[in-house]
Amino acid sequence: MAQVTAAEARVGLDIGATKIHGVAATADGAVLAEVLATTPTGGDDVVTAAAGVVDDLRTRLGEALDGVVGVGVPGLVDAARGAVKHAVNLGVDDWFPIAARLADRTGTRVVVDNDVNAAALGAAQVTGHPDLVYLSLGTGLAAASILDGRLRRGFRSAAGEIGHVPVDPRGRRCQCGQVGCLETEASGSAVAEAWPVSGVPPAQALFDAAAAGDLRAVGIRDHFAARVADAVRLVCLTVDPEYVVLGGGVAQVGERLQVAVAHALAEQAATSPFLRSLDLPGRVLLVPGDVPVAALGAALLARAES
Amino acid sequence: MAQVTAAEARVGLDIGATKIHGVAATADGAVLAEVLATTPTGGDDVVTAAAGVVDDLRTRLGEALDGVVGVGVPGLVDAARGAVKHAVNLGVDDWFPIAARLADRTGTRVVVDNDVNAAALGAAQVTGHPDLVYLSLGTGLAAASILDGRLRRGFRSAAGEIGHVPVDPRGRRCQCGQVGCLETEASGSAVAEAWPVSGVPPAQALFDAAAAGDLRAVGIRDHFAARVADAVRLVCLTVDPEYVVLGGGVAQVGERLQVAVAHALAEQAATSPFLRSLDLPGRVLLVPGDVPVAALGAALLARAES
Repeated sequence: MAQVTAAEARVGLDIGATKIHGVAATADGAVLAEVLATTPTGGDDVVTAAAGVVDDLRTRLGEALDGVVGVGVPGLVDAARGAVKHAVNLGVDDWFPIAARLADRTGTRVVVDNDVNAAALGAAQVTGHPDLVYLSLGTGLAAASILDGRLRRGFRSAAGEIGHVPVDPRGRRCQCGQVGCLETEASGSAVAEAWPVSGVPPAQALFDAAAAGDLRAVGIRDHFAARVADAVRLVCLTVDPEYVVLGGGVAQVGERLQVAVAHALAEQAATSPFLRSLDLPGRVLLVPGDVPVAALGAALLARAES
Repeated sequence: MAQVTAAEARVGLDIGATKIHGVAATADGAVLAEVLATTPTGGDDVVTAAAGVVDDLRTRLGEALDGVVGVGVPGLVDAARGAVKHAVNLGVDDWFPIAARLADRTGTRVVVDNDVNAAALGAAQVTGHPDLVYLSLGTGLAAASILDGRLRRGFRSAAGEIGHVPVDPRGRRCQCGQVGCLETEASGSAVAEAWPVSGVPPAQALFDAAAAGDLRAVGIRDHFAARVADAVRLVCLTVDPEYVVLGGGVAQVGERLQVAVAHALAEQAATSPFLRSLDLPGRVLLVPGDVPVAALGAALLARAES
């Protein structure tokens, strides 16, 4: 790795509720080093842990790594101010100036963005598709759009908040205060509620049980896949990306998720020549399981800024 | 107008089901001349009538007008091929090469796009807002997005087909084959069905009756406004434009429509701090009634192409 200079290597951090995932990568997205650390609670401790991950990456590469450090965090991010709000899982105050605080510790410039935005940038890099929507199926449901190679944040950083589009007037109340939001059915939380298990990820357990022939599991799996298909259709009828990439914790289920969603999309199109003409089943991809797309995307944030 | 040279003036045609609206405009969107003609049926006659409108504009300006002619048409447009499909109201064959045929008649290069896309470009020019979604409330419901000044067509030219996002599993069957599409409630057709009248536009009659105190009209108006508000919320939670501009035939109702939709958005946000934080009521604009935005946008298509 001696041939990689500090000017070339970029650092990206994906600060999640449980882990900080750090990578050093080349400008074209090759991962040179990876570091994992446990996420502490509270702004000061998160900054200290994040700075430690950057130091570890420097040590691993034996390089100064004094370029820009990109950071993806959950919650509402004001990228211009480098501040984050509603990152409840991290225990940081509203509008905590994470970029400035981390810059003080690392001696580098730090750019920060929402973790789903970062993952979308990473997914675009890894798949080689510059026009896609990344669907994050985690605790909630959120999307991020890379349109013609450009990240679309939106006027109020609300682009991709599709989890809070109501799709059923008789649906359940969402924690956002509305009724029948897409997220109440198409999210990891919805799976966990419908298929409660302990010790293994609920989506994994659900798909395993369905594959083993449990008819109740088949029904719940297919209902879930149909609601994820609703989300795919929603983004295709709004921004019409070339691909929709399924990611987030639920995507660890693997190819079975992609197949179930594609099947549900084909079912929905059965009565609609219009939908069939859009070939939605063929446009659903699964995020590669072996690449930390959010951390990699964070490393590419500086490029997206310019 | 002698100071406007042929190189500066641009021609735009909005070819609708009943009328062809042509304008000559400056590069910065000032309308120099307008011509209206009746739309005939069938590809050949539509091209002849459109070429006649271009000739009339040339005569009116006393200029050669040999720059690019932009054309907005209803239906699915393949802008690269200059061809249109599903323009059923014009009676033209699928993939009729309207750009090449009109170019033969006018001796100019012709670019063609969907009429809602053209209207969005025109609305962005007229309002001075380069980041907006134009909501066309006509027979159906469709949207077009200008994001950071760029028209978003989508991978399959399906961006903005929000009329066919299902929002109620127990809703009515849509002509697209799906159930509960937004368009079945939030469109001019929906108003015409709920408030059938003859001789005047149904939306106008409905809003007049509601303003006169007809309680049934008030109920239908408010239900309609709430469904248009659903469409506004949908685009804001997906692409999050700075503004949403209400246009199309129903927008002839005027400011009362804008007020009713803003009111419905405020009602929806009453239970949701998240929605309130987005200030949707303050982001709804009405298309200016005195400017032919679709024809003007068509005149600007050549610029958007480059």
